[in-house]
Amino acid sequence: MTKRAYNFNAGPAALPLEVLEQAKEQLTDYKGIGMSVMEISHRSKEYEEINQTAQDLFAELLNLPAGYKVLFLQGGASSQFAMIPMNLLTEGKTAHYVLSGSWAKKAIHEAKAIGNTVIAAEPEQFTKVPDLSGLNLGDDAAYLHLTSNETIEGIQYDSFPDTGNVPLVADMSSDFLCRPLDVSAFDLLYAGAQKNLGPSGVTVVIMKEDLLTNIPADLPTMFRYDTHVKANSLYNTPPVFSVYMVRLVLEWVKNNGGLAAMEQRNKEKTDLIYDVIDQSNGFYRGTVEEASRSIMNIPFRLQTEDLEQQFLEQATRNGFIGLKGHRSVGGLRASTYNAVPRESCQALADFMQQFMKDNG
Amino acid sequence: MTKRAYNFNAGPAALPLEVLEQAKEQLTDYKGIGMSVMEISHRSKEYEEINQTAQDLFAELLNLPAGYKVLFLQGGASSQFAMIPMNLLTEGKTAHYVLSGSWAKKAIHEAKAIGNTVIAAEPEQFTKVPDLSGLNLGDDAAYLHLTSNETIEGIQYDSFPDTGNVPLVADMSSDFLCRPLDVSAFDLLYAGAQKNLGPSGVTVVIMKEDLLTNIPADLPTMFRYDTHVKANSLYNTPPVFSVYMVRLVLEWVKNNGGLAAMEQRNKEKTDLIYDVIDQSNGFYRGTVEEASRSIMNIPFRLQTEDLEQQFLEQATRNGFIGLKGHRSVGGLRASTYNAVPRESCQALADFMQQFMKDNG
Repeated sequence: MTKRAYNFNAGPAALPLEVLEQAKEQLTDYKGIGMSVMEISHRSKEYEEINQTAQDLFAELLNLPAGYKVLFLQGGASSQFAMIPMNLLTEGKTAHYVLSGSWAKKAIHEAKAIGNTVIAAEPEQFTKVPDLSGLNLGDDAAYLHLTSNETIEGIQYDSFPDTGNVPLVADMSSDFLCRPLDVSAFDLLYAGAQKNLGPSGVTVVIMKEDLLTNIPADLPTMFRYDTHVKANSLYNTPPVFSVYMVRLVLEWVKNNGGLAAMEQRNKEKTDLIYDVIDQSNGFYRGTVEEASRSIMNIPFRLQTEDLEQQFLEQATRNGFIGLKGHRSVGGLRASTYNAVPRESCQALADFMQQFMKDNG
Repeated sequence: MTKRAYNFNAGPAALPLEVLEQAKEQLTDYKGIGMSVMEISHRSKEYEEINQTAQDLFAELLNLPAGYKVLFLQGGASSQFAMIPMNLLTEGKTAHYVLSGSWAKKAIHEAKAIGNTVIAAEPEQFTKVPDLSGLNLGDDAAYLHLTSNETIEGIQYDSFPDTGNVPLVADMSSDFLCRPLDVSAFDLLYAGAQKNLGPSGVTVVIMKEDLLTNIPADLPTMFRYDTHVKANSLYNTPPVFSVYMVRLVLEWVKNNGGLAAMEQRNKEKTDLIYDVIDQSNGFYRGTVEEASRSIMNIPFRLQTEDLEQQFLEQATRNGFIGLKGHRSVGGLRASTYNAVPRESCQALADFMQQFMKDNG
């Protein structure tokens, strides 16, 4: 086998090698049934077990309180951007959004096309999380939406506001399961799987079931949350293989100590890289204020774009993948999701040191 | 390795063993890049190549005329049931639907919630395709929608109507690529992958690009066809692994003689089973008129439900999977998609003969 790449992709991203090897071993024959997971019916007892175990593992890892439902949907966070206001932004209500970066902006764009939408908080620049201490949501608030981690800007909340009776909705695509989470603070949270949960093609939604009472009658069946809650994510054919992979990843998270262990490992991993940045006397420059730094996405710059280009080329030659910043902001970015091994982060820190020595 | 099951699942369904073996071989390391296909970015050159090659293979296998675009979406045919009227059933227009069976019914239900929808043709019973010779669609027709193969009832068209200037839209989920197809007769066709194309989790849409001119301005971005046409199915993160699997399946179709060869093989396969039914003196009873019989789904009955239950139990003990009819209609059904080997069909025919001998 080829040496594993140092995979810092922003998503789809690295998966645990043990999970991939397990999937490989079962690929043509799942548990001796003479069929691949890709060939089983979504009504089979094998898939029922996968669907249920994956939900149970979310519940276990998150200490999920009663009254929440775990859903496996399709269409990514981008579809949730529309489904949330379609389902929750009812007549006479106003949706409140925190504008924290590029992904929040996309969510807001979709909500505005559907109903009355206002920006509840917005920083001057996307270099820190907005201050949410003085939020005034008003009686007509349908919900408050925030983005727990901005993948492109590398900004992450370390605590969440108490919104009282106003439902709190969060896009957690790029940091879900990176650390322990008190789900009871949220009414709906969602995440495309392709960062911390599995391959692209499945979106996890965890929602309070009592959010279902006011869904407008005329929505298409597939775009209503109650359809999928009632059907236990089996209204239509689910992405069977992707959900199976999510289950394997959740087992890996559990076997590796759960969310507290993930957080500790992620902090250690990112410290390796942030330390190089902070001790580089400005050779490397982080773009995020320290208190808002993400333990999932580390954006950084060099003094010139030429030097950034050289960095990327040398990094590529040395087996590093995915270090280019998002095309909308430029620069460099290392995504250090749960499945990125500590060795990859150490190798990147070493490479950054060497590159600074050669070019500083 | 365990013996392969005789897999007659209605979908997700059998995949070619060669394709599964290829996916297995590449699962932890795609072409020596040190990453799984599940770990590559959808913006990487590797995925660009997968996305393009899959589109090119559809174009090649179907002799696709100029002006058509191949899309890879999520959400299955069930999401298309809504997206089609959302995009094409504009103010003042009427959508026409052929009611041919259970899936057409679902498509009609979604269209009715969105705009003016009428049934263009409907048989007395779902035992044959409706007669479409005298269709009168009128000047305000947005489109005519039909279901080329009804998975549950086992009804398949052998020719399609000329709708003149009225766009023809078809759900081909359960028979796409089972035989040669003149795509120029259609303006939009769609298929969930999980029958003939690959694993569940990706939906193929092939549409005339000039259908894009009248899409309502206020639709959510993800539910507009023009979003995905403009972005070459890369507006948001696509289901990378599923599209990769579709590409492998298309290569398999091509290497096995293309669509004409698929049709011949499918006819030979289903003849093995239909012949047993027809020569059973009523022990087995097909539920579809001969001219409308599907070469993908063969529903059949025995004289009593008890006997059907015995059949199912013995079949299961003999390695047959997926022979239970859909829960809405009961009875038995063998789905014989492209990837179901002739040997599975021969084994089923032999089993049916033996069961008749033992119970006739």
